[in-house]
Amino acid sequence: MIRFALHGGAGVIERAALSAQREEDYRQTLGEIARDALGRLQAGESAVAVVEQAVVALEESPLFNAGYGSVLNADGLVEMDAAIMDGRDRRCGAVAALGRIAHPVSVARAIMDDGRHVLLAGRGAQRFAVEQGFALLREEQLVISARQQQLIAAKAENKVSLDHDQQFDTFDPEDRTGTVGAVARDAQGNLAAATSTGGMTNKHPGRVGDSPLIGSGTWADNDHLCLSATGHGEYFIRAQVAHDVAARMAYAGNNLLDACAATLAQVASMGGNGGLIAIDRDGHLALPFNSAGMYRGWVGADGQVRVAIYGDEAG
Amino acid sequence: MIRFALHGGAGVIERAALSAQREEDYRQTLGEIARDALGRLQAGESAVAVVEQAVVALEESPLFNAGYGSVLNADGLVEMDAAIMDGRDRRCGAVAALGRIAHPVSVARAIMDDGRHVLLAGRGAQRFAVEQGFALLREEQLVISARQQQLIAAKAENKVSLDHDQQFDTFDPEDRTGTVGAVARDAQGNLAAATSTGGMTNKHPGRVGDSPLIGSGTWADNDHLCLSATGHGEYFIRAQVAHDVAARMAYAGNNLLDACAATLAQVASMGGNGGLIAIDRDGHLALPFNSAGMYRGWVGADGQVRVAIYGDEAG
Repeated sequence: MIRFALHGGAGVIERAALSAQREEDYRQTLGEIARDALGRLQAGESAVAVVEQAVVALEESPLFNAGYGSVLNADGLVEMDAAIMDGRDRRCGAVAALGRIAHPVSVARAIMDDGRHVLLAGRGAQRFAVEQGFALLREEQLVISARQQQLIAAKAENKVSLDHDQQFDTFDPEDRTGTVGAVARDAQGNLAAATSTGGMTNKHPGRVGDSPLIGSGTWADNDHLCLSATGHGEYFIRAQVAHDVAARMAYAGNNLLDACAATLAQVASMGGNGGLIAIDRDGHLALPFNSAGMYRGWVGADGQVRVAIYGDEAG
Repeated sequence: MIRFALHGGAGVIERAALSAQREEDYRQTLGEIARDALGRLQAGESAVAVVEQAVVALEESPLFNAGYGSVLNADGLVEMDAAIMDGRDRRCGAVAALGRIAHPVSVARAIMDDGRHVLLAGRGAQRFAVEQGFALLREEQLVISARQQQLIAAKAENKVSLDHDQQFDTFDPEDRTGTVGAVARDAQGNLAAATSTGGMTNKHPGRVGDSPLIGSGTWADNDHLCLSATGHGEYFIRAQVAHDVAARMAYAGNNLLDACAATLAQVASMGGNGGLIAIDRDGHLALPFNSAGMYRGWVGADGQVRVAIYGDEAG
C-alpha cells in the first residue's frame, strides 16, 4: 500500500495571523507536492527517491524554512541542516550548518550514496557538495526579505529578553515554524524519511538542531516506521524523538499512534513542543503535534491527497 | 554507591603490536585518571564534573585519539567531536568538527551550561569557544608525529584500495582506536557521560561521527543509565547505540548487561564493531565490546581501580 505524508513545520500558527491568500498558498503548495509524490509512488519510484524529491520541492518554496527562504542565523546568513534515511538497510546521510547550497537534502542523499560517512558539517560539508557537482551559490541567493525582517525583530527581542535574564525564552516560537519533511511507503513496502531546515532565527553560527540527527529528527527502518519531526530541536534531541517512537514500537509493543503520543508527551513534559509525521510498516499514518498547528499534507487511506494547517482540522 | 568507568577506544589491539613500555603507559594513564576520578567522587563532586575532568585528562594525553594527539583528517588537520550529558535532567552539550581547541569536552560543557543550544559544529563552534574564553591554538599544537605517519599510510592505502574499488574498506580499524569517554554515578545517585574523539584518520573534512551525537555515542538519564561508546561511528549512528540500550531497559525491561549485548549484536549484524562503557541507576557496570580490545579502567564493586586492554582480561 502506497502512503505518503509531508510537513512544513509545526508551531504557533493562528488563523488571525495568516492572511487568506497566504493560507491558500500554503495549502496549494503542500497539495501540489503531495500529488506529485503520489504520482511518483504510483509510477514505481522508491520511497527514498520520493521523499528526497518532495523535500527538494519544499526547499525550493520560499514559504518554508528550508533551502530558499531559510531563516537567518545571528550573522544574517543561511546555515541549513538536512537528513535522509532509507528504511531498507538504515543507510543514511546528513548535513549540518551547510551554507550556499540550494538543496541540502540532495547533499545528504549524496553522502548516503557515497557510503563512507553519515554526517558532514560546516565548510567540510560544503566542500563535499562542491566535489559532488552541486552549485555553490552566493550567500544572498537563499535569502528572502521576510527572513531579514524576522532577524531584525529577533535581535531586538533578544536584547530585551536578556535584560530580563530570560535567556531561554529569547526565541519566538513562530521563527521555528517551517522545517520541512517527508515520509513515504512505496509499492514494495520500503520506508524512507527526509527532513530539511534552516533552523532557528538568530541562532549561533554552527548551531545544529534535531533535523539532521538520525534518531532525533529523522528515522526510517522497514521493521517499524519512517518519521520526520519538527519543533524545538534541542528538546527533540534530548527526548531522542524519532528513535524513541521506533523503540516504543519495537520493545514496548506500542502501535504507531500510542508510541507517537507517549514520545510527544515526554517532549511536552520537558517544556518542548512540535510535531511529527510517520508511517509504519503496515501503512498506518500518524501526524501528531502538540503545537497550535502544523503545515501538513498526506495521502489518505482512500488514495486521496489532503492538506491541513490548524489543530482543529482532521488529520 | 559511587561508580566510575572510562575508555580510551576499542579496536584491533593486539599484544604483538603493543610494546611492553607502551602497554605500561596506557595502563598507568588509565589508572591515574580513574583514581583521580574516584577521589573526586569521594570528595562529593558531581558526576558531570567528574566525567568532564576525566575526559579533559584523556584529551591531554597523546596516547589517545582525542584532544592533543588526535588523528588527522584528509587535509592533515585535527577536527574533533565531543559531547557531555547530565542524567539529572538530560541537559547536554556537544561540538562537532571543532579545530584548534585543546579541550572539546569543556566546550561541550559550556554549551550545556549556556543552555540555548545542544550542538555546535565547525567554525561556529570554534567561535563560541573563543567567545567563552577558550584559547585558540595554532593548528599544529594538537598534532603529534605518529598521527602524521598514520595519515601518510592511510592516504597510500586509500589509493591502493580505490584502485581495487574497495572504497568501503579504506579505513584501517586501528585508526579508529582511541576515542575516549567516561561515565560516573556520584554519591547522590546522579549519572553523567562524556565522550571525545578526533574521529577517523583521513576522514573528509567536516565528517562527524557518533561521539557528539546524543543517543548515538553518548547518553545519560538518571532513570536508566549513562553510556559512552567507541567504535565505527557510522554504524553506531545507524544503530542508535546509546539510546537503544536505554530503550531496551526502559521498554523491554532488559537489565544493563542484556541490553548492551543485544544492542552490540545489532551493530555487529550490520558489520560494525566497537564497545561501550555504561553504569545503570543501581550502580551496575558494563564494559562490553566486540572488537579485539578496549582500553578501559573502572572502579570495581570493592571500590578498587582496575584497568584492562585485551579481550581476555577480566572486566
